Amino acid sequence: MSKRLASTQDYSALVDAFDTWLFDCDGVIWHGDRLIDGAIDVLNLLRQKQKHIIFVTNNATKSRRSYKSKFDKLGVQADVNEIFGSAYAAAVYVSSVMKLPKDKKVYVIGEAGLEEELHDEGITTLGGTDPADNVAGPFSLSKYEHDPSVAAVVCGLDTSITYTKYCKAYQHLTRNPGCAFVVTNEDGTYPAGDGILPGGGAVSSPLRYALKRDPIAIGKPNKTMLDTIQAKHHFDPKRTIMVGDRLDTDILFGQLGGVSTLLVLTGVTLEGDITGPDASPVIPDYVTPSIGDLRQAA
Amino acid sequence: MSKRLASTQDYSALVDAFDTWLFDCDGVIWHGDRLIDGAIDVLNLLRQKQKHIIFVTNNATKSRRSYKSKFDKLGVQADVNEIFGSAYAAAVYVSSVMKLPKDKKVYVIGEAGLEEELHDEGITTLGGTDPADNVAGPFSLSKYEHDPSVAAVVCGLDTSITYTKYCKAYQHLTRNPGCAFVVTNEDGTYPAGDGILPGGGAVSSPLRYALKRDPIAIGKPNKTMLDTIQAKHHFDPKRTIMVGDRLDTDILFGQLGGVSTLLVLTGVTLEGDITGPDASPVIPDYVTPSIGDLRQAA
Repeated sequence: MSKRLASTQDYSALVDAFDTWLFDCDGVIWHGDRLIDGAIDVLNLLRQKQKHIIFVTNNATKSRRSYKSKFDKLGVQADVNEIFGSAYAAAVYVSSVMKLPKDKKVYVIGEAGLEEELHDEGITTLGGTDPADNVAGPFSLSKYEHDPSVAAVVCGLDTSITYTKYCKAYQHLTRNPGCAFVVTNEDGTYPAGDGILPGGGAVSSPLRYALKRDPIAIGKPNKTMLDTIQAKHHFDPKRTIMVGDRLDTDILFGQLGGVSTLLVLTGVTLEGDITGPDASPVIPDYVTPSIGDLRQAA
Repeated sequence: MSKRLASTQDYSALVDAFDTWLFDCDGVIWHGDRLIDGAIDVLNLLRQKQKHIIFVTNNATKSRRSYKSKFDKLGVQADVNEIFGSAYAAAVYVSSVMKLPKDKKVYVIGEAGLEEELHDEGITTLGGTDPADNVAGPFSLSKYEHDPSVAAVVCGLDTSITYTKYCKAYQHLTRNPGCAFVVTNEDGTYPAGDGILPGGGAVSSPLRYALKRDPIAIGKPNKTMLDTIQAKHHFDPKRTIMVGDRLDTDILFGQLGGVSTLLVLTGVTLEGDITGPDASPVIPDYVTPSIGDLRQAA
């Protein structure tokens, strides 16, 4: 059963118990373009107490650099090295875990942020924002020049998805022996501020479906993302807590990674999702209505 | 176990046993733009013997009228009423089974052939070939005007797929109570003449994935397609045979519809797929190397 945080003592004990704080952003720190009340105070409080802060997002359309501008715009202090997006984690996975040889390439279904992270890791890409692949319309195999040096397809949310991109990715994945199929995240949808839109997992699903093959998935809740963070920050799981608003991504991510978890109710998870007969089997260690409540630990 | 047809007597007995002949086209009658040897002779032979011929295709990008031009081009006699495509069957399903009220609309992910069949059934459509929805690029909910009169989303192969189409379809399916989710077919891939490309099932998979909901599927192997044919032609299942090259669509389709089945080996299924320890559990009633073999029944 989750511990419900309520008193000043509860919040002070929580802050004392953990050195590394992993934060989901949307639904925790902000809601679209609106800050959650008290979020900045709590982040400042944690920094004053010498806590290690890391922001963990499945957003794959932005590089860490472009994602930081969102923090700047909302007045939230953050260093690029504290931000872990699934685009960055996917790039690190391809370069450091897969150890992609320098003469091999990656075909990208995704946006400029994903390309930027791959390029920063020294990876040569095809597809992505290439204008030739970004035109809606039919694909002709007879005019297609196949590149056997593509050793991975990396797919994230791509709002300029085209049939050409799916066809080229499919050719690489079926014709190049051992070609890896990597997706930045498996989110079916994402909150778009004024509604819900299909997410990165939906965009990659035609390849899963056509190939009858599951991809290597990077983002939350997959452990790959936490392994990437661990490789850079060397945190102690026993003294680390993941704060999020989604049971099936954030909280499960913390659990799969062996760290503690705190659910806030300012995002997609409501009180009814964690109580009663239909409650999720994913049970956070701690629950509090809002991140702003931690101001009481001051 | 399947009966292997080999002698003149086998072929004559087969032709005598069935009055209605359902044919898959690609891999059976033709291969891309090349006729299967003897296919025209066999179709003519069946017509001489007063057999009822029906062509059953999952191709959803063409209307029956436009699909007939393929027959004309290859010199294969066919009447529009003998052709059943999954676009036509989907349109009949929406108009006759769902009984879509006249003041309701269908949002289309698909090509001109699917729109044409829907319009022929008196259905008003949105999306599809509308230029506004056929531009690759981001989708803005704040500029989107939602239409609550959309009562079904019909999705088939669409080589001009865009993120805008997925977003609009998703809004209809989540915001309009009871909005039906219909797919013309569930094929992961299709043979494109000079290779394999993602098919109609792949194109609709982002909606399945985002919605966590299975659609009403029309094309082979689903029984809906055969019900549509039955409604127009009133065949006797005991005297009907389905001829095809795919076990998981054509042969399964015949079996689910309670008609006999004949597998030809001129398409995707090879001898090794029906013999040995890894053979498919879908077992056709009859097997012959090619449709052309039936010339022996003359």
